Amino acid sequence: MTVHFSSRVGSRTLNPIAVAELEAKAAGVALGKLNDSNPTRHGLSSDEVPWVYSAEPRGPRHARESLADYLTGLHALEAAAAGREPKPVDPDDLYLLSSTSEAYSWLIKLLCDAGDAVLAPKPGYPLIESIAGLECVDAIEYQLLFDGSWMIDAAGIEALLDGPDGGRIRALVLINPNNPSGSYVKAGERERIVALCREHGVALIADEVFFDYALEPFDDRSRLAGETGVLTFALDGFSKMLAAPNAKVGWIQVSGPEGDAAEAKRRLDVIADDYLPMSDIIASRMDALLGVAGEQTALVLERVRGNLARLHELLDADPLGVVSVLRAEGGWNVLLRFPGVIDENALVLRLIADHGLTGQPGYFFDMTSNGYLAISLLPEPDAFESNVRAVLAAVAAMLEE
Amino acid sequence: MTVHFSSRVGSRTLNPIAVAELEAKAAGVALGKLNDSNPTRHGLSSDEVPWVYSAEPRGPRHARESLADYLTGLHALEAAAAGREPKPVDPDDLYLLSSTSEAYSWLIKLLCDAGDAVLAPKPGYPLIESIAGLECVDAIEYQLLFDGSWMIDAAGIEALLDGPDGGRIRALVLINPNNPSGSYVKAGERERIVALCREHGVALIADEVFFDYALEPFDDRSRLAGETGVLTFALDGFSKMLAAPNAKVGWIQVSGPEGDAAEAKRRLDVIADDYLPMSDIIASRMDALLGVAGEQTALVLERVRGNLARLHELLDADPLGVVSVLRAEGGWNVLLRFPGVIDENALVLRLIADHGLTGQPGYFFDMTSNGYLAISLLPEPDAFESNVRAVLAAVAAMLEE
Repeated sequence: MTVHFSSRVGSRTLNPIAVAELEAKAAGVALGKLNDSNPTRHGLSSDEVPWVYSAEPRGPRHARESLADYLTGLHALEAAAAGREPKPVDPDDLYLLSSTSEAYSWLIKLLCDAGDAVLAPKPGYPLIESIAGLECVDAIEYQLLFDGSWMIDAAGIEALLDGPDGGRIRALVLINPNNPSGSYVKAGERERIVALCREHGVALIADEVFFDYALEPFDDRSRLAGETGVLTFALDGFSKMLAAPNAKVGWIQVSGPEGDAAEAKRRLDVIADDYLPMSDIIASRMDALLGVAGEQTALVLERVRGNLARLHELLDADPLGVVSVLRAEGGWNVLLRFPGVIDENALVLRLIADHGLTGQPGYFFDMTSNGYLAISLLPEPDAFESNVRAVLAAVAAMLEE
Repeated sequence: MTVHFSSRVGSRTLNPIAVAELEAKAAGVALGKLNDSNPTRHGLSSDEVPWVYSAEPRGPRHARESLADYLTGLHALEAAAAGREPKPVDPDDLYLLSSTSEAYSWLIKLLCDAGDAVLAPKPGYPLIESIAGLECVDAIEYQLLFDGSWMIDAAGIEALLDGPDGGRIRALVLINPNNPSGSYVKAGERERIVALCREHGVALIADEVFFDYALEPFDDRSRLAGETGVLTFALDGFSKMLAAPNAKVGWIQVSGPEGDAAEAKRRLDVIADDYLPMSDIIASRMDALLGVAGEQTALVLERVRGNLARLHELLDADPLGVVSVLRAEGGWNVLLRFPGVIDENALVLRLIADHGLTGQPGYFFDMTSNGYLAISLLPEPDAFESNVRAVLAAVAAMLEE
């Protein structure tokens, strides 16, 4: 089934001038513009912003080419490890923007009219529901189930797609690995979900910002970026790859069946053309930024793996032994589990009062039962250990009362 | 009448943890965060993006303070010239983002549910209709009338607000000066429109990116930024101020009756917090960028005024004398008027074929009759003269046929 696109992007009928412009372009004629409002083409740039502005909807071409090269290398490593043929990333499949939040916003506009819906994982980070709401679109939850490791409830997704809301579901959001559960999409899950989406004319939005942060060697994971079985939008950015949320660089990689992908890009170009968010100030530094991506990922990976190992030691050494950590496969956070007799809100209020520490308990992420607390693996080792000890002390104190 | 806000931003009920966090903040206690996902606070920044990320919804405070200082100075000059008391710009009234397009998007989200409408000027640049459409919102046109100079049809606006669509109109867009008519909002028009908006609970969105580009000395113009009579969002940015559309720096200045402005900012913070588009790479250069704003504006102003003078000379010297220019008060473009017997499309197709130049005729901007062509005043003088001569030649050739 072909993917449904929203009516927010109108079907543009070309006026005679636009037709003639396209013909000139096809003939290799560069037309001048009588009403050119781009001052950088007329010798009016300052030294502070010295570049000629190209106003490309997908972002400056040189920046997309650099990024495509980098991603091609990254993906080739995985392909080699998995014995697959590597696929080069095409700069024309990339859209540069300010963040994955902006990417969600554009993609929801592309796919959903007001009143439509997207499927989002539960437990999950609450941002998607908020962003969808700003587009007058509902987020409907599908479940991740835990039985020692996390799995996607694909049968539940199928029931949603075939159920009363099925007709208004336009996209399925996969977070790979998910936050805060840390679970990767497994090969079997991927196959099933791609088939379900294809059958139902639903696009995949795959948020893979944490993909390169595997907390343990993990074979059964694969990037959805480049998936061709269904229209797929893979999201990534420097926020996690460079540990630089303040760089404000994100991107969309479009892939899928040829017709769907071409139509998606035609329409996404219209949306991108209205906002054009990528600054030449940032684009001019793309090569330098990509130059530190590998070492930054390695630096953070070492930190989160080290803290996770220390967490296990601290939990094992705890005399009470009532706090455990849910197995996480990837990402920057893990979920601690504490005795269900302690109320999640009460525990965090105790941490605030006694330790000057606040936190996000399981219900923030729609965990289905009480007894969870998310903890970041990012802090410097001493600070991390101190955080863990505070949680253990608060739990102990509350059990004693 | 108080302004209507959309239901896209939910009414947030605070959970007990959020209440305790606010209490701690009020007591001056800085709480640690167990689930802090900001790597820049944990010694993980690279030298390429070395700043600690503050994640402020309105944009980094230091950048807003620099901008507020600059705008205060700019507005003080006008206040002095007009004999008014200058009002300092408060950094807390500023929202930094990537462009005025993004600002429109945020403000439409803030004010309009799906199916609501904004009023936009006709003739006008077609971007607003497109951006509103992406938010499932209609743009309804109000008229600018021309009788030697442009005036806003305030009676027409009143009829729209009291008419069948009145109940779904949430904002009125003023472009000051308008593009491509180049007309400033006059003092009397401003008074009338502010009163109309206030009476109808409609917010003002004032796009003032061209404000500092007066094409002739012009007393009867005043910035809407800072207007207190009705909830007002003034938009500006470096695209025009620095002639740097590729810097991707824009901002919103919020003003109005205290209650409306406070509620608007509370809700706008929620929207801004979902996207956080201002990069520290750009923010770190805010002072340097503002440092060239004055000279850049002066450079471009000299260019557009010079080209306008040359345009008048060329039109006066034209033996046929059938092309004239509509009086423009400000901006980077003017409208040429040519004999109505020539079809607008046909003229541009002729310019493409014979002169390798394309252009935007009046119907692009919803002019009410045939016979107009927009022309940019930005090109270097020789290129500009060549453009004008091409138009004159094409018109002459078509009249001869």
